[in-house]
Amino acid sequence: MLYAKNINCAIIVIGVYMRLKKIKNADTVVLNSPFTINNPKEYKGKYKETFKKEIYVEIGSGRGKFIYEMAKINPNIMFIAVEKYASALYKLVKRLELDPVDNLKLVCTDASEIDDIFDKDISILYLNFSDPWPKKRHHKRRLTSDIFLDKYESIFFDKKEIVMKTDNQDLFEYSVVSFVNHNYKIKNIYLDLHNADIFNIKTEYEEKFSKKGFRIYKIEVYK
Amino acid sequence: MLYAKNINCAIIVIGVYMRLKKIKNADTVVLNSPFTINNPKEYKGKYKETFKKEIYVEIGSGRGKFIYEMAKINPNIMFIAVEKYASALYKLVKRLELDPVDNLKLVCTDASEIDDIFDKDISILYLNFSDPWPKKRHHKRRLTSDIFLDKYESIFFDKKEIVMKTDNQDLFEYSVVSFVNHNYKIKNIYLDLHNADIFNIKTEYEEKFSKKGFRIYKIEVYK
Repeated sequence: MLYAKNINCAIIVIGVYMRLKKIKNADTVVLNSPFTINNPKEYKGKYKETFKKEIYVEIGSGRGKFIYEMAKINPNIMFIAVEKYASALYKLVKRLELDPVDNLKLVCTDASEIDDIFDKDISILYLNFSDPWPKKRHHKRRLTSDIFLDKYESIFFDKKEIVMKTDNQDLFEYSVVSFVNHNYKIKNIYLDLHNADIFNIKTEYEEKFSKKGFRIYKIEVYK
Repeated sequence: MLYAKNINCAIIVIGVYMRLKKIKNADTVVLNSPFTINNPKEYKGKYKETFKKEIYVEIGSGRGKFIYEMAKINPNIMFIAVEKYASALYKLVKRLELDPVDNLKLVCTDASEIDDIFDKDISILYLNFSDPWPKKRHHKRRLTSDIFLDKYESIFFDKKEIVMKTDNQDLFEYSVVSFVNHNYKIKNIYLDLHNADIFNIKTEYEEKFSKKGFRIYKIEVYK
């Protein structure tokens, strides 16, 4: 119990830390970047035909290490990073300016907008180290709550596929139950990802926290 | 990877150890015990009316600590311990002779017989620390393989409910996927049972291995 609590605390502290570290003019930089989609709703239902590629989306991309590296090694896929905080996306914009990739776009908005942005557009949704919202009364804000899983129903092109990673045991247990209750089947589940023999691109957060010995969980679901 | 391999090894060693420790006349003692059902197929489809209670079954009861303690605190449920090895059941018979309970019976047979013994009889099936069968070619022998989950289809009275515990990460990951593929929903999942705040009766094996710091996994599924 203590262990779980400590992990939650660590995540909250980090979450707040990331959000509070505001970067001056981040909003302007992100807004004016050619990598940013500022009118995402106008592409709703047309992402695939616009970009002529399959669409993979990450919600909560933070500074974008994961999605940037994914885009680099998968040039035939269009990646879209959805992130609420411009201060986080700022780092991804700077990275893209230094070393551009054609197949990565940014959307600076809240996750709750996801079904206003996409309609039968995407193939895979990534949820990496989302906020665990540890208090019971906040569980509905989790990106794997009933509310969000309902929102995701309309965003997928054909087969629905969600890939989730977290170091938060409570969030992971909750999410497994939630996915299954929403009729997702499990493609793979990893209860100790960094000791599993599979290819894995780490997020910035994941790199930092796995070094401290925290276990990383991963699940791939589909329907 | 090393960690997982070590755990598998430990389980194999213990499994073999338990099986090799043969007790003289165990077969005779178990066969002649009033607590043993020697003709379980004759009760097929009639367990509930025979015992006038709901039926909970554990497959692979070993020395029976878990099911004995469950029977003690749930007098309104009839518990049936299914175990292949008389040398393991011997200890349960001796325990029952010293301190009898009315609502516990023993069946000495292989798990593969389960659908020959029960037909719409049982309410809950317990699978505690089953053999992990670590080699891929032996996975079909796991008590949560497709073969076994198909067998369980006919044994439940109404709602199907299976409760599983293990310290084997690979077996647990496999079983979660297998349950969900067989359309079970997840009631609860615990990725670190002994640090969860829930009531738990430990098996003999569980007591020994949790002391060594191995994580215990538990899942409750239903359909």
